[in-house]
Parts: sequence; structure tokens; C-alpha cells
Amino acid sequence: MDYSLLAGGKRLRPIMVLAAAEAVTDNEDISARAVNFACAVEMIHTYSLIHDDLPAMDNDDYRRGRLTNHKMFGDAMAILAGDGLLTHAFHVATQAAKNGVPAERVLAVVEELSMYAGLPGMVGGQVDDMLGEQGVTSLEQLVHIHVHKTSDLIACSLRAGGHAAEADYKQLTAFGLFGRNVGLAFQIQDDILDLTGTEEKLGKPVKSDERQEKVTYPFLLGLDESRKRVAELTKEANEALLQAGLKTPDRLIEIADYLLNRDH
Amino acid sequence: MDYSLLAGGKRLRPIMVLAAAEAVTDNEDISARAVNFACAVEMIHTYSLIHDDLPAMDNDDYRRGRLTNHKMFGDAMAILAGDGLLTHAFHVATQAAKNGVPAERVLAVVEELSMYAGLPGMVGGQVDDMLGEQGVTSLEQLVHIHVHKTSDLIACSLRAGGHAAEADYKQLTAFGLFGRNVGLAFQIQDDILDLTGTEEKLGKPVKSDERQEKVTYPFLLGLDESRKRVAELTKEANEALLQAGLKTPDRLIEIADYLLNRDH
Repeated sequence: MDYSLLAGGKRLRPIMVLAAAEAVTDNEDISARAVNFACAVEMIHTYSLIHDDLPAMDNDDYRRGRLTNHKMFGDAMAILAGDGLLTHAFHVATQAAKNGVPAERVLAVVEELSMYAGLPGMVGGQVDDMLGEQGVTSLEQLVHIHVHKTSDLIACSLRAGGHAAEADYKQLTAFGLFGRNVGLAFQIQDDILDLTGTEEKLGKPVKSDERQEKVTYPFLLGLDESRKRVAELTKEANEALLQAGLKTPDRLIEIADYLLNRDH
Repeated sequence: MDYSLLAGGKRLRPIMVLAAAEAVTDNEDISARAVNFACAVEMIHTYSLIHDDLPAMDNDDYRRGRLTNHKMFGDAMAILAGDGLLTHAFHVATQAAKNGVPAERVLAVVEELSMYAGLPGMVGGQVDDMLGEQGVTSLEQLVHIHVHKTSDLIACSLRAGGHAAEADYKQLTAFGLFGRNVGLAFQIQDDILDLTGTEEKLGKPVKSDERQEKVTYPFLLGLDESRKRVAELTKEANEALLQAGLKTPDRLIEIADYLLNRDH
């Protein structure tokens, strides 16, 4: 569990939790209140990477610049490390109640985590991805898979930060939309980088999508149109945020800009 | 997820949830309040069976009289079905708040589920079991593994039923003890039945422990001493229950007696 959780990575999801909470309120304690949810989403993200990397799934040997969990510890321990991280994520989330988050808000976050990470979300997205590997032909199908595989947990992270700061309905909805778009832009950018990046910067072999004959955005739309899509999605995401009556949406918008321009 | 969840089985854990709730109060609505937790623990139990049966783990072909999940749907789908059930268990548990269970009690159940099912509980027990397969030599080690692999979720089920009925601290503690002992007795009985039962009654091949050279209670203690252990543990469990000031502990005691005398 530690090996994969502490392997680095962008920490995008926990940053989203904290940035969303800080966008709602300038209360100085807000990070301490939101930090449990930040840890929970990173644990869920890490569990999903460990299981996705297994030989039965994507069969990847490297992740974040080092051997994948099952390459280090064997398939059984990797399955259990994922199970342990997923379960522990819910534990860590409940502890927010001891850091000043009202019980109803903590319950709302647990409920949302279990949906966005579960069959209606990430798990369903991964199932569709596995089943569709031979047959994805339309942009619509690809968007559907990525909304669930990637966007859902990002949207959930933002909403969790919102709940920690007791955001209102309008703000939570804007966080959901922002997360959906940024998550999709992030995934398209990932596909682009797999084609155009270097192994040194990415910490994993490039052009793996091509080798595995995966249907990606650049494959369906071409590189230029894919890049345009990233810019449009980011613009829409920022607009949703600016109309939600947030105190300080700046940092979230910075993150979206960073995702648009990253090279790893 | 449906294939394994609806495959039958004894439904011991959900029955424990409902029986514990009914032991605390004679409120007629109590089953409706406790039923979410009953579903949650069965989902967690089923996920653990699906993952334990995988080729990377115990590599079992049959479960509850039919092909195991990965034999039907492949390893990837079995991993995802387990992930989906584990995640959905937490979702179902949160919905108890909509059936009249106070938010603090629902949170307590989510917190306990995440511990008893996680690294300090079932996942840790399975890890120790896998790591110990070559080297378990003492009864102490075997008890440690089974307390976590089996007892923890049973204890958690009883405590969840208790929380649904707003049990007091003393009652929750008695449920925990009862669950620990009954779970251990249940596991010893499983080992005994693997040696003495028939494939027809068990719905799975017998003597699989011997074939896999597993260290079991009958292996360490002999059949007679193992049977005596089951009786002692059940007696202790019943005594703990009778001293907790419960309204109607009868059904729980009936369940313990059933476990002691079952042949499948």
C-alpha cells in the first residue's frame, strides 16, 4: 500500500480537494478540515492504478517511474494492496468528522465517493474500457469511458472539498461540471503526451497506446483537433467556476491552465 | 456482481446484522433500519470471496455449487466485480440514513466497516494467510489469521445491527465478543467439514485443504480437540450475550447453535 501510495505522482486529486475547499472559504482551518478527503481520493486513485496495472487488466510493468505494484510484490499482494487502499479511503474519509466537518457532510462525501468510484463511476468506466477495447469506434463511446474512468473521481474530489467547506448546491454543481471537463481534458492530454512526450519526462514508456492498438482521441480526431478540444474543455470549466459565486476560484483555474500546458 | 452476490450461500452475516438489531429492540421498524447494513456486509463478504478465489490467490474453480466469478467472466471482470461490490457496500450503508438511522450511527458503521474489512481486519488477515501458507506452525498464528479473515466481518455485522438499533456501549462490546468467538468457531467448523463433509452437501470439493497442504485446526489439534474448541467458543459467545442486558438475545443464540451443529 505504501509503495504505490508514496510513489509520487502529480497528486492532482488531493490538490483539487484542497483548492476547492479554499475556493469556497478563506477560513484558515479549511485545509485541516478537507485533508481527510484529500487523502481518501488519492488512496482511491492509487488503488485503481494498482488494479488497472495487473496482468489481467492493462498488464503494465512501470508506473510513476518505477516497477508496478504486482511487479514488486506479486499479483496476490497487488490485488490486496488495492483492496486495502480502497477500504482505507473510506476510513480516512470518516475521520473528517473529528476535524470539524459536520456528520451530514461527511456522510455526503462517503456516499459520493462510493458512487463516483463505484459501478456508476470508475469501476463501470474501467469495465466499459475493457469490454470496448476491441470495439470503440465513436467519439461518444470514448467520452463516456473517460468521463467515468477519469472525470468522475476528479469531480468527486472537487465536490468533497466543497462539502468540507460547506459549499451550497450551486457551488457543488459548478465543481461537478469543472471536474468533468478538466478530467476529460486531462485524459485527452494524456493521450496526446503518450504520442508526443518522452519516456524521461513521463516516467513510463511512450506510444504504449499505439502498440496496444488503443482507440484514443488523437486516433479518432487527430492531434490538432485533440489539442483544440483540451482548450475548449478548459475554457468551459473555468466559466462554470466563475459563475458559482466562489470567494477565490483562482487556484483551481491555475490548475486547469497547468493541465492544459503540461508536458508530463 | 449479481452472479456472485445472488449465488445463494448461508447469508450468515446479513442475518447477524438483523438478529443483533432485533436483540436490542422490539421496535417493529428495526429490520427496515438495519437492512442497509445487512446488504453492505453481504456485499463485502462476496467481494472478498471473488478476490480470494482468483488464480493469483486461492485459485478455486467452484464456489457455492457453481463456477467461481473469474471462471465465468475472466480475471479482469472478477477483479472489477469485487472492486464494485466493495465500493457499493459503502454506498448501501450510507443509505441507512434515509431509513431512520441517525447520521452519527451511520458514520460509526462506515468507520467500523472500513476497519474490520480493511488492513486491520479482513485484508490484513488474507495477507497474513497468503504470506503464512508456507510457514504457519502455531495455533496462535492460525487464530490470528482467522480472527481477521473471518471473525472481524462477523463482529462488524453484529455491531452494525447494534448501531441500527442504537445499542449502548456494553451491548456493542458484547456483540464484538460474540462475533469474534462465533466467527472462530465457524472457521474451525469449516476446516472440520472440509475433512468430514461430502461434496454434495458443501457444494464444493472436499479435502481441498489437505490437497493444498493448508495448516488447519484439525491438522494442528486433531478432529476431537477441534470439535471441543467449537463447543467452548460457542458457549463463551452465548455467555457474553446473556450478560449484556439485551431484550431478546434468543435468535443470536440459535444461530450460534446452528453453526455448531451444521453439516454444510
